[in-house]
Amino acid sequence: MQEKGSISIHTENIFPIIKKFLYSDHEIFLRELVSNAVDATQKLKSLAQLGEFKGELGDLKVRVTVDKEARKITISDRGLGMTAEEIKKYINQIAFSGATEFVEQYKEKDAVTKDQIIGQFGLGFYSAFMVAKEVEIWSKSYKDDTLTAHWICDGSTEFTLDEPTGEHAKAERGTDVVLHVADDSDEFLEPARLKGILTKYCKFLPIEIEFEGETINQTAPIWTKQPSELTDEDYVSFYQELYPFSEPPLFWIHLNVDYPFNLTGILYFPKVKDELQFQRNKIQLYSRQVFITDEVKDVVPEFLMLLHGVIDSPDIPLNVSRSFLQADAAVRKINTYITKKVADKLSSLFKQDRAGYEAKWSDIGMFVKYGMLSDEKFYDKAKDFALVQNVAGKLFTLPEYQEFVQANQKDKSEQTVVLYTTDAEAQHGFVQAATERGYDVLDLNGPLDSHFIGQLEQKLEKTTFKRVDADTVGKLIEKEETTESVLSDDDKTKLQELFKTAISNEQMHVQVEALSPQDAPVIITLPEFMRRMKDMQRSGGGGGMQMFGSLPDSYTVSVNANHPVAQRVLQAEGEAGQKLARQAFDLALLAQNMLKGEALTAFVKRSADLLAAE
Amino acid sequence: MQEKGSISIHTENIFPIIKKFLYSDHEIFLRELVSNAVDATQKLKSLAQLGEFKGELGDLKVRVTVDKEARKITISDRGLGMTAEEIKKYINQIAFSGATEFVEQYKEKDAVTKDQIIGQFGLGFYSAFMVAKEVEIWSKSYKDDTLTAHWICDGSTEFTLDEPTGEHAKAERGTDVVLHVADDSDEFLEPARLKGILTKYCKFLPIEIEFEGETINQTAPIWTKQPSELTDEDYVSFYQELYPFSEPPLFWIHLNVDYPFNLTGILYFPKVKDELQFQRNKIQLYSRQVFITDEVKDVVPEFLMLLHGVIDSPDIPLNVSRSFLQADAAVRKINTYITKKVADKLSSLFKQDRAGYEAKWSDIGMFVKYGMLSDEKFYDKAKDFALVQNVAGKLFTLPEYQEFVQANQKDKSEQTVVLYTTDAEAQHGFVQAATERGYDVLDLNGPLDSHFIGQLEQKLEKTTFKRVDADTVGKLIEKEETTESVLSDDDKTKLQELFKTAISNEQMHVQVEALSPQDAPVIITLPEFMRRMKDMQRSGGGGGMQMFGSLPDSYTVSVNANHPVAQRVLQAEGEAGQKLARQAFDLALLAQNMLKGEALTAFVKRSADLLAAE
Repeated sequence: MQEKGSISIHTENIFPIIKKFLYSDHEIFLRELVSNAVDATQKLKSLAQLGEFKGELGDLKVRVTVDKEARKITISDRGLGMTAEEIKKYINQIAFSGATEFVEQYKEKDAVTKDQIIGQFGLGFYSAFMVAKEVEIWSKSYKDDTLTAHWICDGSTEFTLDEPTGEHAKAERGTDVVLHVADDSDEFLEPARLKGILTKYCKFLPIEIEFEGETINQTAPIWTKQPSELTDEDYVSFYQELYPFSEPPLFWIHLNVDYPFNLTGILYFPKVKDELQFQRNKIQLYSRQVFITDEVKDVVPEFLMLLHGVIDSPDIPLNVSRSFLQADAAVRKINTYITKKVADKLSSLFKQDRAGYEAKWSDIGMFVKYGMLSDEKFYDKAKDFALVQNVAGKLFTLPEYQEFVQANQKDKSEQTVVLYTTDAEAQHGFVQAATERGYDVLDLNGPLDSHFIGQLEQKLEKTTFKRVDADTVGKLIEKEETTESVLSDDDKTKLQELFKTAISNEQMHVQVEALSPQDAPVIITLPEFMRRMKDMQRSGGGGGMQMFGSLPDSYTVSVNANHPVAQRVLQAEGEAGQKLARQAFDLALLAQNMLKGEALTAFVKRSADLLAAE
Repeated sequence: MQEKGSISIHTENIFPIIKKFLYSDHEIFLRELVSNAVDATQKLKSLAQLGEFKGELGDLKVRVTVDKEARKITISDRGLGMTAEEIKKYINQIAFSGATEFVEQYKEKDAVTKDQIIGQFGLGFYSAFMVAKEVEIWSKSYKDDTLTAHWICDGSTEFTLDEPTGEHAKAERGTDVVLHVADDSDEFLEPARLKGILTKYCKFLPIEIEFEGETINQTAPIWTKQPSELTDEDYVSFYQELYPFSEPPLFWIHLNVDYPFNLTGILYFPKVKDELQFQRNKIQLYSRQVFITDEVKDVVPEFLMLLHGVIDSPDIPLNVSRSFLQADAAVRKINTYITKKVADKLSSLFKQDRAGYEAKWSDIGMFVKYGMLSDEKFYDKAKDFALVQNVAGKLFTLPEYQEFVQANQKDKSEQTVVLYTTDAEAQHGFVQAATERGYDVLDLNGPLDSHFIGQLEQKLEKTTFKRVDADTVGKLIEKEETTESVLSDDDKTKLQELFKTAISNEQMHVQVEALSPQDAPVIITLPEFMRRMKDMQRSGGGGGMQMFGSLPDSYTVSVNANHPVAQRVLQAEGEAGQKLARQAFDLALLAQNMLKGEALTAFVKRSADLLAAE
């Protein structure tokens, strides 16, 4: 025996599959049926343009009505309509794509483009059975001398088809789809729910949709127009329509590409008050003006997920798995295209209006830094328009800043040392000391800045970054000069021992330094390298450093040999010297925000007593 | 015309649909094919038990092999096997559930239960075409005198079926499914990838699976056994197998229910070092020992998502939409059942071993509080075993704590005032003052505690909560007694004015109070109500309070009339009095962690100068 044959499908099992697998949300049925109605109407318009249909087009609105009492939802169009034969062909045979055949048939004639055809008729229609226990179609073809076709199916695979005449005949061209809503789908009989679904999915469909006397949609949303036809007001008011109560956007990018993929849309940079307000999933994905999803992960680069707006592309595969989407060549090209457009827009804003660009920097800085960190190509473009801000509030590009500090902040081995603070308030004393010394200090307090610093150190030549409290100000940038100590070596050793005893903490490494008499009597610092290691460990990075247990805290305590307090500690007898040293150390802890809990309570109490006794 | 008919499906369009819609991950093909092989083997075992198969069962292993050169993956079993007729019936007709028919046929005979039948043969098999360009089946039925069946299909709907004899005949009973891997699916030719997939999905299948000479699975995982057969070591070692390198679990719950739904499994309470380690999605969902997903949202109550372990239930609908799952009656019952089991387990741990339970509290407290907040029924059970801890580290149940503080902490209107700190270190001075006064202070520093406080105030009668720095210690719990002031009313007014001028900040409301001379000279507090409003606003709650703009900061500054500093400020002349008042105020700011930035730097500098000059 050898036989060949065709795999067949047991139809009685297909409805549960459509219900369970095809769409994850039942509400989709309305999108599919309205899309079909719009599709039929578009096709009729195309035929009219081609001269194949010579009748009156008339009112082409698609109407959605609901009758809660009768448990009916009706979707009516005045499009092509279908004869009984066509219903047999297009409806009774699942997964036959009516749209595809229509395009095949007319592909020679330019006026009809693939873009005007929405959806695949076959499967979309059957989504009606997700919410209906029975579906009726009443249809009358645009062709002359055709009868009304009436199809009815109760969700089993058995249907009835007839051609009613007389009072039951349909007077008007077009199709009515009538859903008899199932008992478990009461929610879809609520006008408010239906309106919500229509507004979500059909807001920008190209044929007017009417529900309860109101028009739901704008048939020509601005992304379908040419930028030259649009004013700034058009863009801003479209934004405010998409996101009511939002502040106006900072700027926008109109996307418009035909080849090698088809994509239109508008991306907006939102104005956000603080980081917590960043909202992802604010980009809406459309396919030929039908809303699909606001999950655009993988279509838009990760670092641009915080943008708002609309993308419309028939070339993005829908309803497919995540991993498939990532591998899709069209999606990868779209991704690259969007990144390039964003970089170009930022670059032109920077070049054309530096002051305006600087004013926006606090809002866009995080996007730009995130992009530089996550995409090498974006880094190469952005390195000329990314800005850094110093504690005085002045903004520089990276080349400008290198130029600005290089005269004063080169160390003895010709490295430029960039000083920064992660919290100008908490590190105020250190910032002040550096500024008084004539150094410039950058404000790098953003959540991405520690990574950004790492990247800049790799990219910029002979440049290192140091936080202002990484060392005493004299040693932050090591030069040849030194300040002379007023103390003898013996006194220095004695002073070190006195402080060691007073502090009596192994994590505090006491050293005596000849600082300026204007500097604090004691200064606590944490070396840059040590702090970075600890930060990395805290954030769970550093490649398994966890394995070695927590790094110990290890601070440097610099006792200022040239401060009068040093003299007093040396001269004081026993207990009094210890007390003085301890108080000076407490002040250093305070300046580093390290005096806390019981120690702080005791310090406050001691200081209050002193105040009372003075 | 009236006609009735059957909806048919165009098969040539069904493969793309299976590929695109049915499974979001291509790797699923291996789970489906191995499940089918296990299924066929289980069925043969059942037939042997029923006496319908009298032959030798022999080696029943399922074998998976890969030949990278030949681009082939083979799944072989020694189960039922199929004749050419059976292949036509089960394979060529998609969506025909072989398993269903098998159960129908044998449902009268107890030995075969639905539980032993895995999957729906029909659709699962076709998932092979997600990765293969051609699929072959070689099969020989367990029935006597049957020929080898050989089926081949290239992913179109055309198949070829023959019955080879001689050297091409299959010697052994059973089925080999051979996948000729497609060019875009090279990854599945890597043995490491296949082993990864098998380990993920097939680790606990009930028939031995062999891959590259190794057995992949445990055929009888512990959740399928009775708790009475298992020791603590069994549970712990199963946990460590699921989550290598984890610390041992705190305790576990063995789930086992037959009616009204079928569910087995083991849930573990993990031991976590800190909140950041909480990992969601650590519960694995199985259906008849086949791994399905680790996304158990909606199956397990939200507050128990942090549990680890395994749930096995054939009654949870798979691959359906989120909203459908939430509405599913079985899922809701499962949810309730799990919640009840967890509450019962906690209650019995508490009753049987209070000390052991207390030792675990720091690990389970957050689960319990989250549960109480999110589920009223759980609150009712948990209110007797939820604990609170005071700053001395002692743990109380809620009734115990009310009993403990009610003698000392009732205010004049008979309300019990529970004092708490959200940060014992930062609020140290206030905690100390309250403790010295003989009050007890609870440590409520968890991320949920502000909501928990709100809930307790609603549930517990005549009880309010106050943070220790909501008022000066004398007024935290208002009693009838008052401390007398050593100052005259005139002096009080004068003192208030002096401080107002020295502080000169509208947000600081200065009042003079007769506190103890041991208290601080100045104390800054933020009333409980005000702080809660601000917290709510910060967390974005409070029902649109955002609309009214930020609440102003508004602190109470209590000047202690009975502290010696008050006398000195009154006696000092002009500038000196202001300086003294300012310094006392700075100390109060310090105690509230509010002295920062430039003000802190100036304070440290001033104090260092004082130290040098003393």
